[in-house]
Amino acid sequence: MGELTRPLEQPLARHPRVVIVGGGFAGLHAAKGLARLPVDITVVDRRNHYTFQPLLYQVALAVLSPADIAQPIRTILRRQQNTQVLMDEVVGIDPAARRVALVSGAQLPYDYLVLATGATHSYFGRDDWAPFAPGLKTIEDATEIRRRVLLAFELAERQMVEHGWHPPLNFVVIGAGPTGVELAGAISDIAQLYMRHDFRHIDPAKARVLLLEGSPRVLGAYPEDLSAKAEAALGRLGVEVHTLTHVTGIGPGWVEMAGKRIEAVVTLWAAGVEASPLGRLLGTPLDRRGSVLVDERLNPPGLPDVFVLGDLAHVEQDGHQVPGVAQPAMQMGDHVARMLAADLAGRPRPAFRYFDKGDMATIGRMDAVAKVEWPFKAHMSGFPAWATWLIVHIFFLIGFRNRLSVFAAWIWTYFTFTRGARLITGDQRLPGWQDQIEAGPGEVAKKLKSKTV
Amino acid sequence: MGELTRPLEQPLARHPRVVIVGGGFAGLHAAKGLARLPVDITVVDRRNHYTFQPLLYQVALAVLSPADIAQPIRTILRRQQNTQVLMDEVVGIDPAARRVALVSGAQLPYDYLVLATGATHSYFGRDDWAPFAPGLKTIEDATEIRRRVLLAFELAERQMVEHGWHPPLNFVVIGAGPTGVELAGAISDIAQLYMRHDFRHIDPAKARVLLLEGSPRVLGAYPEDLSAKAEAALGRLGVEVHTLTHVTGIGPGWVEMAGKRIEAVVTLWAAGVEASPLGRLLGTPLDRRGSVLVDERLNPPGLPDVFVLGDLAHVEQDGHQVPGVAQPAMQMGDHVARMLAADLAGRPRPAFRYFDKGDMATIGRMDAVAKVEWPFKAHMSGFPAWATWLIVHIFFLIGFRNRLSVFAAWIWTYFTFTRGARLITGDQRLPGWQDQIEAGPGEVAKKLKSKTV
Repeated sequence: MGELTRPLEQPLARHPRVVIVGGGFAGLHAAKGLARLPVDITVVDRRNHYTFQPLLYQVALAVLSPADIAQPIRTILRRQQNTQVLMDEVVGIDPAARRVALVSGAQLPYDYLVLATGATHSYFGRDDWAPFAPGLKTIEDATEIRRRVLLAFELAERQMVEHGWHPPLNFVVIGAGPTGVELAGAISDIAQLYMRHDFRHIDPAKARVLLLEGSPRVLGAYPEDLSAKAEAALGRLGVEVHTLTHVTGIGPGWVEMAGKRIEAVVTLWAAGVEASPLGRLLGTPLDRRGSVLVDERLNPPGLPDVFVLGDLAHVEQDGHQVPGVAQPAMQMGDHVARMLAADLAGRPRPAFRYFDKGDMATIGRMDAVAKVEWPFKAHMSGFPAWATWLIVHIFFLIGFRNRLSVFAAWIWTYFTFTRGARLITGDQRLPGWQDQIEAGPGEVAKKLKSKTV
Repeated sequence: MGELTRPLEQPLARHPRVVIVGGGFAGLHAAKGLARLPVDITVVDRRNHYTFQPLLYQVALAVLSPADIAQPIRTILRRQQNTQVLMDEVVGIDPAARRVALVSGAQLPYDYLVLATGATHSYFGRDDWAPFAPGLKTIEDATEIRRRVLLAFELAERQMVEHGWHPPLNFVVIGAGPTGVELAGAISDIAQLYMRHDFRHIDPAKARVLLLEGSPRVLGAYPEDLSAKAEAALGRLGVEVHTLTHVTGIGPGWVEMAGKRIEAVVTLWAAGVEASPLGRLLGTPLDRRGSVLVDERLNPPGLPDVFVLGDLAHVEQDGHQVPGVAQPAMQMGDHVARMLAADLAGRPRPAFRYFDKGDMATIGRMDAVAKVEWPFKAHMSGFPAWATWLIVHIFFLIGFRNRLSVFAAWIWTYFTFTRGARLITGDQRLPGWQDQIEAGPGEVAKKLKSKTV
């Protein structure tokens, strides 16, 4: 195992060492908030890039390119003299010795540790579903979903040309939170508006988009009137919403719900998230999703020098859990900087309080719902909500170049009805497709039903 | 195996069926040239997208995004009513029965067959070198090279931070044709200009770029004065050019030339191409590179209804082979359309004649060499050649959106010295890196030398 090394130790003899693990919303806000303090910061992330997750679904549905919403973490922090960036993965934490172990073998000492590694999708113990129903958390996930959705249309066209029929184009999205709603709306968009003129033999508008949700309504975290508006908007887009529907099985080319199996050319998973496994390394109490229970100063019990932020943290406020979305993550990052400034000044650390400005989700082209809490309180829907969504998301993109290129891509897409990034790269097969075409027309449902799960 | 199917047969009873295999420069020019003729065209490509290969190296070196230089073939041809696009792979040709066999199992009948599947890289029988020295022909190749180059800097920085030293950052490019020269120049650029401010512990300017060439000079197909200018320009960029240097071995982390082994953090292959294996399916004579020998009407011997174009064709003109670059491919595509028009009008087919407008290659930022043949004859170098290169390449990009986004990316890159698409996706290891760091500082060269190839 590694040694402590000179390049790190020399400056750190003077300034407190802050190790920030995770370069997402929370980690980057913490790093930027500490820019002018006399601390030595190391941001560790196993990826070289920050990803603007709220727009990942637009990469998955070929509106944007990966580079439009992602940027190297070291480029974002290049002008920040007290900060270095390390592309590496943390595999151990020793709170007593105050150091983290890296997968590359070295140990990184800290005076303050900030953990902000977020969440990943959870299949509720059914990890065998993962190959058949990818989730959406990374750039790789997004290009994999893009590959599957675009390939489904290509394979159906090929099958039509060569054999005069094709298996049904059912796109199944599991989970109707914001990501599920956005994915379902965007698939319906791409089928109805954008791909209509490109294919000669299939009718992309005949693609079915099914949105399955176990709870009684879509966007369960939103007020009921907005859930109803979102469901109506999805209906107008042709998305078939099935609430109170529990998925009991997923396999190559099919989804099973309450014993009934339907064919699915592409299945996407937006049903559950769990915290990054890093939280477990602390040895402090976790909640059901694996998030670290922290107090109002974002510390786990008994570890005042460790801060846990963003989706990895479970913070209670007024009897409710602060939600795992972008805004609280950014605010927690800012807050850690304020607390360390207090430490350095010998003042007591202020308590964290989440200031909720609202929440919003798009539903296809030019429609959205928004619960606005600040600067005024309102429930918005339709075009005004969508326009607000647009402005807010452009504003929060990091980097002028990304703002410019995303804005240009949107203008282009919304005016020309074509998408800019419709590339299929990598493998050219879809799980289950071959089974379905070998079963033949009309035989597919029968054959699928006779299979055991 | 598949049947002939209704959707194809009905219209084709009236019009001659033209099957075009390959949606590159040659295939697309053939398809577009046939747009207004009474023929039924099927363009078959195993990828869904056309790739503008002359700018692939800019994707590999993170200037451009894949979607900037690639576009779905069916989108390019969407308004062409006599054309359908099929994403499939041809695995057999039966010239007697006039049909091609597809990997999906179907048979596609034709009256005219146009083969334009281009070339791929050739390791001269050493395919075991491929994992250690990727070539550059596809979008996937480009993102793989981008991954390796960017990862090399990240791993060196990590190693510096954690252990105070790193293995040498030698980038080895094998082959000094246009692609090799462009790759070497662009790596030197990215190291010297763009990455200097992003790293705290390594000095990217200390990266070495070696360009190895077996023949006596770089850009061997160019006039000698331009080769000399290119070599001088490479020298100014810090690229170490080694001509008359034959590579005898490539492995994880090293390249061997004439028994001498050097460490190589990234090795790129730009030394040889061979024709697509599809040419072999015809059963007609091939040249050494596997290209199909065709006459001045682009027909292989005895097959007047089969046309072979672009890099897959070996065409002799005035005692020289027409080169395997973009211009002749486009001209051959246009010419096939003219020949079929002649057939339909009952006129004799005109002979193909390559009209050489010149050739050019960039050498890093703001430098290039160009042999201009039309509209005037000249040898250009330096900034004027580079500006000409810029205009020509923007002009030949397909699609207004791509022109706009490439132009914007170039403006951005050249003025801000940053690149827009610096993403590392996929695997986070480099072949040979772990061996080198385990060998320790100073030990690497020794250990490498003691290994057997």
